[in-house]
Amino acid sequence: MAGIKMDVEALTAFLVRDFPQVCDQFVVERITEEGLILRLVVQDGHLRPGRTVSGPAIFALADVAVYLAILSRLGPVALAVTTNCSIDFMRKPAAGADLLCDVRLLKLGRVLAVADCLIGPAGSTAPVARAALTYSIPPNGPRGVPVTAPGT
Amino acid sequence: MAGIKMDVEALTAFLVRDFPQVCDQFVVERITEEGLILRLVVQDGHLRPGRTVSGPAIFALADVAVYLAILSRLGPVALAVTTNCSIDFMRKPAAGADLLCDVRLLKLGRVLAVADCLIGPAGSTAPVARAALTYSIPPNGPRGVPVTAPGT
Amino acid sequence: MAGIKMDVEALTAFLVRDFPQVCDQFVVERITEEGLILRLVVQDGHLRPGRTVSGPAIFALADVAVYLAILSRLGPVALAVTTNCSIDFMRKPAAGADLLCDVRLLKLGRVLAVADCLIGPAGSTAPVARAALTYSIPPNGPRGVPVTAPGT
Amino acid sequence: MAGIKMDVEALTAFLVRDFPQVCDQFVVERITEEGLILRLVVQDGHLRPGRTVSGPAIFALADVAVYLAILSRLGPVALAVTTNCSIDFMRKPAAGADLLCDVRLLKLGRVLAVADCLIGPAGSTAPVARAALTYSIPPNGPRGVPVTAPGT
Repeated sequence: MAGIKMDVEALTAFLVRDFPQVCDQFVVERITEEGLILRLVVQDGHLRPGRTVSGPAIFALADVAVYLAILSRLGPVALAVTTNCSIDFMRKPAAGADLLCDVRLLKLGRVLAVADCLIGPAGSTAPVARAALTYSIPPNGPRGVPVTAPGT
Repeated sequence: MAGIKMDVEALTAFLVRDFPQVCDQFVVERITEEGLILRLVVQDGHLRPGRTVSGPAIFALADVAVYLAILSRLGPVALAVTTNCSIDFMRKPAAGADLLCDVRLLKLGRVLAVADCLIGPAGSTAPVARAALTYSIPPNGPRGVPVTAPGT
Repeated sequence: MAGIKMDVEALTAFLVRDFPQVCDQFVVERITEEGLILRLVVQDGHLRPGRTVSGPAIFALADVAVYLAILSRLGPVALAVTTNCSIDFMRKPAAGADLLCDVRLLKLGRVLAVADCLIGPAGSTAPVARAALTYSIPPNGPRGVPVTAPGT
Repeated sequence: MAGIKMDVEALTAFLVRDFPQVCDQFVVERITEEGLILRLVVQDGHLRPGRTVSGPAIFALADVAVYLAILSRLGPVALAVTTNCSIDFMRKPAAGADLLCDVRLLKLGRVLAVADCLIGPAGSTAPVARAALTYSIPPNGPRGVPVTAPGT
């Protein structure tokens, strides 16, 4: 897999700047050999009756985690977009526990990136969900220019 | 396909009672021969940079729409849960336009229900997304009793 | 959707020429407004114990059907490749009955094509399977040259 | 994950007895902590123009591999059926090389089993495909009785 272009600190700064409306929900835990781990800080807005984390909140966790994993290898290029997600909800999340999403980048091609995710509470071997996502990578050129650096 | 057990009015009352936190985002447009049509009333919270509707908001629209389509045929049984969703994001939604989700119930089995969805702005033939969802249907008995109304 | 570049006769000739090992399994039934209909001529090699059509045979039907639907609109360009398929097996196929795959092209983009399929015996309203497939469309240029015409 | 009810030898005997038409295509390489590894012995019938392994052959590999992984943990119960498969084709397989499918069982529930697969040539870190499959597990009782032993 490619080298690391953005570390935890850079990805966190990117989240704060470009996704201010959701950045307080996510914590970049660490970069891994195959991808990264993102934490969903569970809040009332994520919960369904029974205080279980909702499907859309789990989907959003996987979607943001794969996006950040791609950025960690490609650098701060904007505009990669999700083209496909297949997700299996396997177990009911425990009420109120944060969820970790462990991303493996399986392909970082010229046009498409593919990753899979295991999602569950910290320390568990019984995942709540698994997902695979495909992102379309914009070609170099006008659409692929680097995002302006923080502070500019 | 099975007969209609809950109409637009009954489904709307169900949404208000059981999903108060999201019920103002969705309007049950109508029951169709194959399923139903649900509208996402686009709000600021659904938007990403560029004022386009976010992937998680589109996922939530499909998830709620299929749930309501199942209820429309089975009646107000609770506890059907999403087990799988595969979604393709095909085009960028226009800024600020409501999205309609057109559900076709393809199978309403004893254990599993399968439906697909086309999602796009009203009147468009170029869908923004397509999705297929599987719901696990709880067996009859204690888990499958009708939802009691609040206060009863 | 785009106009028709290859009709039933041209698609059949393409199958015979480029897929001689499978062409006797498939019949292009007709071009439809949204895609086309392909028939799987069920043979012993498609059957599993119980004489039901196997999952891989149903997958192959969907895969070939979407490929031909793309060609019907784009003309005989080679090298479109499947990048994703999500398929739900909903009912057991009846023993020995041919299966029809009804393709709807949902997107024919510059880079990706997306289609969905309903698969079942002729005349049935209870589909055996549904599938969605994504094909990667090769860019124009060396990789996208038209397939050589028959006889050359 | 559950203990091992069928080992490599028992699974191989099961393949030979119940899937005589395909058993010469597959070799159970080994049981792993999370599932098992199945080899597709590539034959001419699996190849497409360019001598690359076809999509349906890769699908069949994943489908059989997950089935055997479930049997390895549940024992020789028959009639588990595939209900969903989502597969990403990421790279073109090298001509003529066998493919290994590495299965991880993520859930073995009362009603559904979920597994994911990485597929590629032996020793490679660049997978050809990834897939996730759901199997419906038949309830105990008449449909779930053990498969009769060979010779009975």
